[in-house]
Amino acid sequence: MNYILASASPRRKELLTQMGITDFQIIKSTVEERITKTIPAEIVEELSEQKCVDVAKTIKLPGSYLVIGADTIVADHGHILGKPKDEAHAFAMLSNLRGHEHSVFTGVTLCLCDNGMLQKKVTFHEETKVFMRSFSEEEIKAYITTKEPMDKAGSYGIQGRGAILVEKIHGDYNNVVGLPITRLYEEMKRFCQTDS
Amino acid sequence: MNYILASASPRRKELLTQMGITDFQIIKSTVEERITKTIPAEIVEELSEQKCVDVAKTIKLPGSYLVIGADTIVADHGHILGKPKDEAHAFAMLSNLRGHEHSVFTGVTLCLCDNGMLQKKVTFHEETKVFMRSFSEEEIKAYITTKEPMDKAGSYGIQGRGAILVEKIHGDYNNVVGLPITRLYEEMKRFCQTDS
Repeated sequence: MNYILASASPRRKELLTQMGITDFQIIKSTVEERITKTIPAEIVEELSEQKCVDVAKTIKLPGSYLVIGADTIVADHGHILGKPKDEAHAFAMLSNLRGHEHSVFTGVTLCLCDNGMLQKKVTFHEETKVFMRSFSEEEIKAYITTKEPMDKAGSYGIQGRGAILVEKIHGDYNNVVGLPITRLYEEMKRFCQTDS
Repeated sequence: MNYILASASPRRKELLTQMGITDFQIIKSTVEERITKTIPAEIVEELSEQKCVDVAKTIKLPGSYLVIGADTIVADHGHILGKPKDEAHAFAMLSNLRGHEHSVFTGVTLCLCDNGMLQKKVTFHEETKVFMRSFSEEEIKAYITTKEPMDKAGSYGIQGRGAILVEKIHGDYNNVVGLPITRLYEEMKRFCQTDS
């Protein structure tokens, strides 16, 4: 099987490699995201599907290949947190996340293609609960100076310096990083085995 | 403050770097481990203290420095799992860990030294619950061929291919890797601030 990761995220690239998939192409979707849902789990599924189907329909490769699309968001008390617009926005997000639990959702879509034709697809999501400690404003400022928050949903990277903001998690750690690799492994196994 | 990591584990070295401590020496303890306790939390505390105090008492450096010692074990239904003796042992451990929750304990000791004299020390531990999925014997065999299990307590590395064996965790992820860095950060802050 050939694999195509429909995401330019270096973290997703690393996670796919960690799973044992070392030979894959990265083709980023250029589709404009359209959110029609309001529930976090449905939003990430919708966006992962848009990206994956866009890449699956655009590229024309010989033989059989699997396109993997994903989208991650942070949800806190019903608010959806994407990437911060600027440092002040990152500061506000991190201030709000302190001392309680929020959720990280990653949606994944798999598209199985054959000779440039989309044969079938499946979409799923995983939720991980993240409990942040009551860090200080000085700690937020020090963290923002590292620039790490600026390209991350929710303004933190659990796999980087952001780890010391997190007290504990409940669920799949790699789902917070950007891909629920255990679930992905199982879904891929099932999806590529059946002929339906 | 100067830091000394009393552990040769490359994973602990990476985690200390991830915390933002980039300038530290690695000095491995050569003391023979003596286990007098039976409770996992007490065993890891005891072993981390033996390693840390050994290094703190052996080295003689000028000025003020902090020695960090750590020990990690896996506990499953009251059984302590260390590193596997051989591949058959790794297979047996992984077979037993399937489909249920076990605990990973890391004990950490900090020794504050001044001009070669141990001034004070503190010891703590963290527990993380790890729930493994019901993977197959073929999957265990494939995992063992990667050699990854051979130097890991419990025969798996959650930060490597072993991630796809783990369904979810409850607690600090980095504690499973080898150092509870959020707790360590807070304990270090407290420990190095006070003069008592």
